[in-house]
Amino acid sequence: MTGPLRVPESIRLREVGLRDGLQIEQPIPTAAKLRLLEALVATGARRIEATAFVSPKAVPALADAEEVAAHLSEYPGIEFSALVANPRGAHRAVDAGVTALEYVVSASDGHSLANAHRTTAQALDQVGEVASVVHGAGGTCEVIIAVAWDDPFDGPTPPGGVVALARRAVDSGADRLCLGDTIGTTTPVRMAELVTAVRTTCQGTPLGVHLHDTRGAGLATALAAMQIGVLDLDASIGGLGGCPFAPGASGNIATEELAFLCRECGIETGLDLERLRAAAALAQEVVGRPLESGVLRAGDRSLAAVRR
Amino acid sequence: MTGPLRVPESIRLREVGLRDGLQIEQPIPTAAKLRLLEALVATGARRIEATAFVSPKAVPALADAEEVAAHLSEYPGIEFSALVANPRGAHRAVDAGVTALEYVVSASDGHSLANAHRTTAQALDQVGEVASVVHGAGGTCEVIIAVAWDDPFDGPTPPGGVVALARRAVDSGADRLCLGDTIGTTTPVRMAELVTAVRTTCQGTPLGVHLHDTRGAGLATALAAMQIGVLDLDASIGGLGGCPFAPGASGNIATEELAFLCRECGIETGLDLERLRAAAALAQEVVGRPLESGVLRAGDRSLAAVRR
Repeated sequence: MTGPLRVPESIRLREVGLRDGLQIEQPIPTAAKLRLLEALVATGARRIEATAFVSPKAVPALADAEEVAAHLSEYPGIEFSALVANPRGAHRAVDAGVTALEYVVSASDGHSLANAHRTTAQALDQVGEVASVVHGAGGTCEVIIAVAWDDPFDGPTPPGGVVALARRAVDSGADRLCLGDTIGTTTPVRMAELVTAVRTTCQGTPLGVHLHDTRGAGLATALAAMQIGVLDLDASIGGLGGCPFAPGASGNIATEELAFLCRECGIETGLDLERLRAAAALAQEVVGRPLESGVLRAGDRSLAAVRR
Repeated sequence: MTGPLRVPESIRLREVGLRDGLQIEQPIPTAAKLRLLEALVATGARRIEATAFVSPKAVPALADAEEVAAHLSEYPGIEFSALVANPRGAHRAVDAGVTALEYVVSASDGHSLANAHRTTAQALDQVGEVASVVHGAGGTCEVIIAVAWDDPFDGPTPPGGVVALARRAVDSGADRLCLGDTIGTTTPVRMAELVTAVRTTCQGTPLGVHLHDTRGAGLATALAAMQIGVLDLDASIGGLGGCPFAPGASGNIATEELAFLCRECGIETGLDLERLRAAAALAQEVVGRPLESGVLRAGDRSLAAVRR
């Protein structure tokens, strides 16, 4: 880190468009997902959340998890992960050959009950079993702490509760942690404060962040996270995604916007911007509506050049 | 500045929606502008760019500059400013009672010729006369350096040229400087580098920044500017604005998004978020199309709360 503004030399971006991006959409054909997967691999992405092994009734858009997973071995060298909601999902994932799992625990009961029909404590109680299943297959268990800053039902989430939850998740077997700004309300200073607090309590456990760009502050908050050394960031192609419980909520921070920001700041992502734009255009085609990504719409800065 | 992320205690935000925001729109009735002005004053704004004294043929949307200016004395205690393009405009402004002027010099010839039908050198040559006119009326002259990072015609703007231009502007009588990211391509590290370079050469001259949020990085870049101590930032209500020469260009950073970011980071702006949302809704009504502001659409974070 050098210069007037300190930023890291590189980050590890995880592409979550196929899971968080598509989960609230109307189901799209598996073949279309596989085209998008191929386009995402072509961007240089090395960490891709491919699907979720959850109830097809609860999330019809991801009912084809096994079918998608069957194609992942076509792309060696990429860490494909999947989200699960309980030990049964973990077994399904492992049986399908996916051994990098994300398990969500909402930091407060309001969202936990609405999203997963159980309390935070009940969700936390299953971390051990989920971790055990995936560890038995030689894999890893990441716990994503949802609504880590604000819960659309319960309001602001007490940071102390998030820290305690993070610690208990690690004690129960979590290999990694991720703080989720599920409804797109957090901002740079809150980001820095919570990351700092969780790190202090969970030293040695990799900590990532998952942001939504609902109030224009998504990349500013990502910048703040990177400035304090967070190197694992989720983003979704085209800014796909949303939250069914937050009015006006938009999608995740867009992969191509974060990659643009990083490239321009000298932060290596390994991603190719033009291929990201092509993948974002495909994502837009696949979901059948315009996506809000500025980089998709306006292009790289070289494309700002026009002829007189 | 304290905590894991250093930010300033307060900033001085300049509302530019009435000028930069409206200049590319179809002309709207003066009465509608005055309603918007009243709503903006109610937000707590203390610096408002009210109009531009430029050719009504070139910018028909601001042909009513004198009429708007005639109402500004109804709001004492607010610094109203106006943009001018030449000494004649400066005389018009002063005659209309506006004595805080912005004068634009594009940092490279491509944009300068397209925007103002003259070279950068020719524009720079008039700084002295514009400053002289406004100083004669007891006012101030700010030079806005447009396309300070990238020119849509000429490509990347050499920083050394911007620094030299800034120095010459100050030597010619500029009281303040502003770096304009006219086509929304700059990013945090480039921001920090150029601000640092200009400051070194123009110590003692207040330096502000003017950003567009074209590629999602507007607030991240504003955050970077604030982190290195830039306290004068332009923003437009609802994110109004754009650049006729940049494909896909969106408007300025939205006032309510910047104010939200600042409030959440403990940076005082003096602005009321709910009144900003009301003003943004009015701006949307006035221009007759949806604006892209996330805070306008999604609300304050307290509004994310919903009932079960």
